[in-house]
Amino acid sequence: MSAGEEVLVAGAGMTRFEKSEASLRELAGAATREALEDAGVAVGEVEAAYVGNAVAGLVTGQEMIRGQVILRPLGIEGIPIFNVENACASAASALHLGWQAVAAGAHDCVLCLGAEKLTHEDKRVGMRAIGTAIDLEQRAELAAEVGTAGAGNGERSFFMDLYADMTRRYMSASGATAEDFAEVVVKNQHNGALNPRAQYGGELNVEQVLASRMVVDPLTLLMCSPISDGSAAVVLMSEAAARGRGVKGPRIRASVVRSGNVHDRDDPLSGSTGLAAAEGFERAGLGPGDIDCAEVHDASAPAELMVYEQIGFAEPGGGPALLASGRTRLGGELPVNTSGGLLSKGHPIGATGIAQICESTWQLRGEAGPRQVDGARIALTQNGGGWLEGDSAAMAVHILSAD
Amino acid sequence: MSAGEEVLVAGAGMTRFEKSEASLRELAGAATREALEDAGVAVGEVEAAYVGNAVAGLVTGQEMIRGQVILRPLGIEGIPIFNVENACASAASALHLGWQAVAAGAHDCVLCLGAEKLTHEDKRVGMRAIGTAIDLEQRAELAAEVGTAGAGNGERSFFMDLYADMTRRYMSASGATAEDFAEVVVKNQHNGALNPRAQYGGELNVEQVLASRMVVDPLTLLMCSPISDGSAAVVLMSEAAARGRGVKGPRIRASVVRSGNVHDRDDPLSGSTGLAAAEGFERAGLGPGDIDCAEVHDASAPAELMVYEQIGFAEPGGGPALLASGRTRLGGELPVNTSGGLLSKGHPIGATGIAQICESTWQLRGEAGPRQVDGARIALTQNGGGWLEGDSAAMAVHILSAD
Repeated sequence: MSAGEEVLVAGAGMTRFEKSEASLRELAGAATREALEDAGVAVGEVEAAYVGNAVAGLVTGQEMIRGQVILRPLGIEGIPIFNVENACASAASALHLGWQAVAAGAHDCVLCLGAEKLTHEDKRVGMRAIGTAIDLEQRAELAAEVGTAGAGNGERSFFMDLYADMTRRYMSASGATAEDFAEVVVKNQHNGALNPRAQYGGELNVEQVLASRMVVDPLTLLMCSPISDGSAAVVLMSEAAARGRGVKGPRIRASVVRSGNVHDRDDPLSGSTGLAAAEGFERAGLGPGDIDCAEVHDASAPAELMVYEQIGFAEPGGGPALLASGRTRLGGELPVNTSGGLLSKGHPIGATGIAQICESTWQLRGEAGPRQVDGARIALTQNGGGWLEGDSAAMAVHILSAD
Repeated sequence: MSAGEEVLVAGAGMTRFEKSEASLRELAGAATREALEDAGVAVGEVEAAYVGNAVAGLVTGQEMIRGQVILRPLGIEGIPIFNVENACASAASALHLGWQAVAAGAHDCVLCLGAEKLTHEDKRVGMRAIGTAIDLEQRAELAAEVGTAGAGNGERSFFMDLYADMTRRYMSASGATAEDFAEVVVKNQHNGALNPRAQYGGELNVEQVLASRMVVDPLTLLMCSPISDGSAAVVLMSEAAARGRGVKGPRIRASVVRSGNVHDRDDPLSGSTGLAAAEGFERAGLGPGDIDCAEVHDASAPAELMVYEQIGFAEPGGGPALLASGRTRLGGELPVNTSGGLLSKGHPIGATGIAQICESTWQLRGEAGPRQVDGARIALTQNGGGWLEGDSAAMAVHILSAD
């Protein structure tokens, strides 16, 4: 972006993530109202809206104009509204498009919204919907490749089969163990207990995590992010427009979206996460050592360790040691998933990417309460979606600074 | 957009619209390859892709990463890929986002793609999918309002019930008759016969149109756009990047997307079409009198006449007279739907908006063969999608110039 406008997160709002009785539009409405109120922005000041959602079409039948249907009851109409899908990275993709519009000077104030309702009276409906974030024509091939017959039957998300396969490769490459993955869960459930918007949270020990039901070896139930409903929203403003309005920020220093590349599956540093992070650091003029806190896509517990290495928080193979050092716990130098992450906070897939931005916003403003990272100035988020040819189909990295 | 880059349509590609045996990805691949070849752009030069599709999730089950699945076999990977939905305006919405990225200087070369496969072994599947472009919670209310019991049963698109209701109001307001609507069909089928990519086309007379099966009074079958499969793609480049590459254009002078406003249903000039067109004219520094040819959203025949008035090609109530004058026929001063329009060329809904841009590109380059508009310099496209509270849920207007 040449000579772009500076873009601030002017407001953030988020429902609790949980298995909810509320409808998609009720959840999205609540998050949107909170974000607008936080920004001090009236409905009529919103110039465009970018709405991420992944599965409403398959779960509720409502396709195509999901954002309009959600926003109209709030009085948001007439403006450009875009419905954006990128599987579990739908919200971060919507955020990127909104950021681009403000950075370009096309708009001064936009709404970026992610919303998802995965629960359904038939539990398999949500599971099956998540399972469409692959190339369906390759489903049989993929199921054979990851060595499972159960994949895609709706009893569990197909993605846990993919994660299990990736995890087994990662264990070979790094020496990571099931105990390491359990430690990720212990950390994130501890954080989630400090977050009133988290679906779960509590004090667990490694034995409890390992003893929970085996979903796909080596992933136990507590190592898998849950099925969740929820919504998260941010209002973005140009710095020029925010001036004099008491907008607290933070500032978006980099917004990067990539799609997957075919890469070496045995090399955790190849692929879209590392490439997106490197591009983000370059755009922000920062490096991994500058990050004070991060929200990463721990859809399964081992993923958090892999991401440490992909982003450059740890050397290749050094994920487990970084975790064991305590640096990524609250109180460490680089707390990761202070919100509880996907594992504890929950994972309403089309909302997750913006929920990460909400947590980063609260951390960088010093508003994160008992899970506050002291003196946090720079935050990173990483949000992946879908699966294609051995990599995430979409990958988003955002870097924010307190000022 | 302040101080934006000039954006050129560097390449256009489109499949024939038809009931096709080919898959969605085969159709999209063919359109994409043609657009890249037309632009003289290699796969590796595409910096981002914006992919419009509306119903694949409901028709094929493939949701969330449709663009990645389509583009990966072509070797397009690694770049940002965004899946965009806005019902029948999905393609124009994807185009707008791609245009914005290039105008902003974020990218120099992007792909904008629309693709749709509506046919299915069960004909009702496509019909029902189209019917989700409304607020499903208002379906019963809407069905009662438009006075139909058949709406949404899959035997016909619910939108024809909505169009019929709108048409009855329009007839009261303007004095338009069923014969006028039949004349639109006669004109557009004549044009479609000159377009090798059109699904239908031929020489009809008013009596034949009126005698075709009644779908919803006053709309006969030939007054309704058909169920179609197809894809259309354009490559957009910044003028700076296009320099020295022999890129022929045209140039995008305005790209406007709006969502519907609650408005007076008895006033055809209120609502999103008129507002989007007015904004487009203002951005382009042009007016209705400057347009040499136009592609408008004739999903039903009466809509073309209403759009004449909404855009300002005719005074309120003057749509039928403008048609009768012959000015909007090929050979007239302002030919409309030279491609055959949705009525004759076909309407694979998520592809239509970019197909309009392809036709405009060919007209402005003088490459439209037997349907060429002599000396065409300025073209307008209008693409609407969905329905909410008495207006289109999404409305896009683009204005292009030959240089």
